[in-house]
Amino acid sequence: MTSQRNAPNVARRNQSTRRAILTAALDLVAEVGYARLSVEGIAARAGAGKQTIYRWWPSKGAVLFDALLMLGEGQGDRPSELPDTGNLEADLTTVLHATVEEFNDPRLSEPMRALTVEILLDPALAADYTERLENPIKELKRRRLRSAQEAGQLAADVDLDVAIELLWGPLRNRWLHNEGPLTTQFADTVIETALNGLRAR
Amino acid sequence: MTSQRNAPNVARRNQSTRRAILTAALDLVAEVGYARLSVEGIAARAGAGKQTIYRWWPSKGAVLFDALLMLGEGQGDRPSELPDTGNLEADLTTVLHATVEEFNDPRLSEPMRALTVEILLDPALAADYTERLENPIKELKRRRLRSAQEAGQLAADVDLDVAIELLWGPLRNRWLHNEGPLTTQFADTVIETALNGLRAR
Repeated sequence: MTSQRNAPNVARRNQSTRRAILTAALDLVAEVGYARLSVEGIAARAGAGKQTIYRWWPSKGAVLFDALLMLGEGQGDRPSELPDTGNLEADLTTVLHATVEEFNDPRLSEPMRALTVEILLDPALAADYTERLENPIKELKRRRLRSAQEAGQLAADVDLDVAIELLWGPLRNRWLHNEGPLTTQFADTVIETALNGLRAR
Repeated sequence: MTSQRNAPNVARRNQSTRRAILTAALDLVAEVGYARLSVEGIAARAGAGKQTIYRWWPSKGAVLFDALLMLGEGQGDRPSELPDTGNLEADLTTVLHATVEEFNDPRLSEPMRALTVEILLDPALAADYTERLENPIKELKRRRLRSAQEAGQLAADVDLDVAIELLWGPLRNRWLHNEGPLTTQFADTVIETALNGLRAR
């Protein structure tokens, strides 16, 4: 009886400890970078035990992954639909400008970069990431482009997954590999070039 | 006098030790993967001392980088010009099919992936890589596209760096992030879609 009556308290306390750990991980990685982030450091900042963290997560990369999912959850239960005003170019501009902003925000950018590196090194984390974050987001993009295709704005024979690569890939690449300034102007040029194509007409 | 007369021998011996180390690094990374690659392992395989390696390179990532440059040098002194037959689409197809082949060859792919991860973690290595490998290769791509632009095959207002992203980015992304099978068919679709654009006409 006692343990049953205490269960909601335990769950609430666990939930609050979990949030403290995830918040500490985001704060720390933005401050010291991923290489110097450690489970010990996260534990100290969160006022939690190192063993508590290892009970819930196998690595600092896994902690960061859940921390990023927590940030996403703050904006609603699931990744939200992309805007669909009927004007594809305007909607892509809205979405890619927001992406530029995220990539330029160290509180998001630093853990995302760290997570990307971890994923490249850890197939289990990669599979988890693909299933829980990448595939749902890609499905939203596919859905927005399909709606444009059905409205006759995209060529009927365009492979939507390739279209996603052409539109979103250049921003991600420039960000991940530090290949140039990430500006809204760059996003605009990418959208215009991908929509119009490279060929002279 | 003695040391001067011996200098060419020392240089030749150093050169041969250097090649043995770089070859050992390539062999090992293809066999055991990057995570399990170590300077000790490279030294043992090359029959060289660990201190010899550390005298020439600061890290296993730096060894791999030079090993990849050595592979490139095998094909001539400098990265060679991209083909220019006057037919842009055919030339892009030749080049991107070769890229698909490289990405599917574990002896190249495994060290390239490892180097990419190291570069994401090490700004000094990143700067070296950008200067010695990435910028020269990008300049070759830019030159081929500029020639197409001058021939009136590419739109006059296309930003060539964005064009490079649209053409080469999707293959690199799919390879690096394991986002789907890397086939020549995929390369063909990317080329066609980038050239023609996404818009319905």
